[in-house]
Amino acid sequence: MARTGRRPGVSGTREAILDAARRAFAEQGYQHATIRGVADLAGVDPALVHHYFGTKQRLFVAAVQLPVNPVEHLMAVLEEDPEQIGRRLVATFLSVWDHAAEQSPLLALVRSAVGDDRAAALLREFITEEVLGPIAHRLGSPDARLRATLVGSQLIGLAMARYIVKVEPLASVPAAQVAAAVGPTVQRYLTGELAP
Amino acid sequence: MARTGRRPGVSGTREAILDAARRAFAEQGYQHATIRGVADLAGVDPALVHHYFGTKQRLFVAAVQLPVNPVEHLMAVLEEDPEQIGRRLVATFLSVWDHAAEQSPLLALVRSAVGDDRAAALLREFITEEVLGPIAHRLGSPDARLRATLVGSQLIGLAMARYIVKVEPLASVPAAQVAAAVGPTVQRYLTGELAP
Repeated sequence: MARTGRRPGVSGTREAILDAARRAFAEQGYQHATIRGVADLAGVDPALVHHYFGTKQRLFVAAVQLPVNPVEHLMAVLEEDPEQIGRRLVATFLSVWDHAAEQSPLLALVRSAVGDDRAAALLREFITEEVLGPIAHRLGSPDARLRATLVGSQLIGLAMARYIVKVEPLASVPAAQVAAAVGPTVQRYLTGELAP
Repeated sequence: MARTGRRPGVSGTREAILDAARRAFAEQGYQHATIRGVADLAGVDPALVHHYFGTKQRLFVAAVQLPVNPVEHLMAVLEEDPEQIGRRLVATFLSVWDHAAEQSPLLALVRSAVGDDRAAALLREFITEEVLGPIAHRLGSPDARLRATLVGSQLIGLAMARYIVKVEPLASVPAAQVAAAVGPTVQRYLTGELAP
């Protein structure tokens, strides 16, 4: 195979950082991976990693090649009227998945989380720190973390049924119809009666 | 390794049939696997497979070593007052999982369904024929299959969050509390308003 022989430019450095990040997250988990450790692996200065990606959270989102940053979308949704976020949250979640490629690293991560304890820990730590933490903080109720995990259970199941196992008719109905059906579930988990 | 050298007795024959069934389901899927094909693979008469396992559905349940037959539990739950089955369905589902061993073939099947299209098809066909079909029949509504898949999405997500990715606190709260929280979701998917 011929190689170009050019030294890596901006996109080469960026890709080297992302490769290093994928290795660091896979080997150390979300909690223990650091910007400094990723920089060391990539052979660049930590300031450069900060320059390109800002935070560990954004680096992770870039490393798994999500088309949008779900944490930033989540924050925007959480800013709205708390009684209206169920459907918005489901719609946002579906749009991330509808736009993810069939062989996306997101799908790969979910797949490996199911088969591999270390990948499961990575996913669990990211969800706990970056998704459940902010939701619990926003809700402020004593059972906020349980509520957040119930939301997570419905969303991950939706991804499994619609995008991975592809059970019909759920796999083919329009996203808006799914959001209308599942939105009230998420709304109740967030702000409704949990044990009537 | 020493071998006993004994010829297979009843339990040996039963195990040979189950081995053959696992191969047949994995290779041909749920829909196309047949009692006759399993018997051929195991080198026994089809009547013997019928004698031990009755139906293809029971053979599948035995092959993946479920501690209870979820389809028979489902049928019993569906016989009850349709307005009360949400919580019962969730409680039954949790008890199947709570009693399944950590390395059970059920977990293995779900894991492989996430990584392997053929295993996903096997799971999808079993769920469609043996779980969604009966629920849709019992409900009798035009959108019954969509309702059933929505139920499936919540239940598979619950299994992922509580038993596979093990997100806290959902992984540790008592099953009765989970059934109380998730039951109304399943109830609404079965008999409530889908698009308010």
